[in-house]
Amino acid sequence: MSELTLVIGNKNISSWSFRPWILLKQSGISFQEIPMKLYTPEYSASIDKYSPSGKVPVLNDSGLQIWDSLSISEYLAEKFPEKELWPKDTAARAQARSIVAEMHSGFSAMRTHLGMNYCGRFNKEIPADALKDITRVQAIWTHCLESHGGPFLFGKKFGIADAFYTPVVSRFLTYGVELSPKALEYVNTISGLVSYQFWGEGAKAEVG
Amino acid sequence: MSELTLVIGNKNISSWSFRPWILLKQSGISFQEIPMKLYTPEYSASIDKYSPSGKVPVLNDSGLQIWDSLSISEYLAEKFPEKELWPKDTAARAQARSIVAEMHSGFSAMRTHLGMNYCGRFNKEIPADALKDITRVQAIWTHCLESHGGPFLFGKKFGIADAFYTPVVSRFLTYGVELSPKALEYVNTISGLVSYQFWGEGAKAEVG
Ligand SMILES: N[C@@H](CCC(=O)N[C@@H](CS)C(=O)NCC(=O)O)C(=O)O
Ligand SMILES: N[C@@H](CCC(=O)N[C@@H](CS)C(=O)NCC(=O)O)C(=O)O
Repeated sequence: MSELTLVIGNKNISSWSFRPWILLKQSGISFQEIPMKLYTPEYSASIDKYSPSGKVPVLNDSGLQIWDSLSISEYLAEKFPEKELWPKDTAARAQARSIVAEMHSGFSAMRTHLGMNYCGRFNKEIPADALKDITRVQAIWTHCLESHGGPFLFGKKFGIADAFYTPVVSRFLTYGVELSPKALEYVNTISGLVSYQFWGEGAKAEVG
Repeated sequence: MSELTLVIGNKNISSWSFRPWILLKQSGISFQEIPMKLYTPEYSASIDKYSPSGKVPVLNDSGLQIWDSLSISEYLAEKFPEKELWPKDTAARAQARSIVAEMHSGFSAMRTHLGMNYCGRFNKEIPADALKDITRVQAIWTHCLESHGGPFLFGKKFGIADAFYTPVVSRFLTYGVELSPKALEYVNTISGLVSYQFWGEGAKAEVG
């Protein structure tokens, strides 16, 4: 048996950590959690022993370090094929990987102006470039939900694509973003998951 | 037989396009090329018919659109298993995916301050945050070359990890970045490839 350990950042703010964590939880894969407090002297002093990039999340599988939310997801998809973390259909899988990679490398305006803050509720003017990102996210969700029938992006099972868009759901709730009915449905689906709320309890405990 | 078409941006500046292009070339996979001029009215007018994200590169396989350099690479790795675009060993593959995903989502200071410009040669002061990125790239290269024996990042074959770091080689040459001997060796390996230079001929033709 392998031992999976996931090193993560603060639950209130670490959007990258949220992805593999919720993927593991939703898939019923058991793992140990090592929480780190970002931007503290303790973090700087000890992160090197976990993470070659100095960042979280990192998955450790019996000594093998996998750093980065996307490579962790690909690793889990290979290790647990029966969990179908990617869609089985080749075209759907290519589409899922495209929206995941688009999220991984893009949406910088949304990231900057709508920083994840699970517990916060803010009312602020959203700049035009971030609005463009929000429009694109909604187009992606709508297309996926319509093509695959929902409630998740690729059908009946929560997968890697959903994990990558989960922190976006949190951002939309924090900043009270106006959404289309279809996008709102998806926000409700994700934020209604027990594991989503369980992450939130951790965030609340941190924030106090 | 499937028909692969790769839509790409200007060869002089489109770092994201360079990745799948050189991966295809180095692997001997045949494809058609559709060049687009970034930031022109023609681009804005016609990109929607190729790319759901409005960005390049996009791979089209007999009608299936795959947009994003990383999802294209994963698609090719699945479609052409005999090409071994990822390392065969599980641990090496996890490591390769980690450095590829790290490149895909990070190094924003290097991206901003050392924009790809294949034909340009500039002498400029490199800001501290970009220098930090450069140090990290060299650490990745050194670790991979020492663990797998070179000349490529994961041994004797050019793979996806090399494709993702190829535009960085171009950036380092453009800005005359000071490098460790090991990193310099890798720069020479990549920039000496016929396909690297062939891309450069395209860049020169554009720049005039
Ligand atoms: N591409 C990485 C990004 C990880 C990342 O940027 N993590 C942030 C926290 S959410 C971090 O570790 N920051 C600490 C630092 O940069 O010192 C991934 O997807 O895992
Ligand atoms: N994550 C994408 C990024 C692609 C990207 O940003 N491409 C740039 C050109 S190098 C682009 O198409 N820019 C045009 C635009 O944003 O309008 C990938 O890896 O393919």
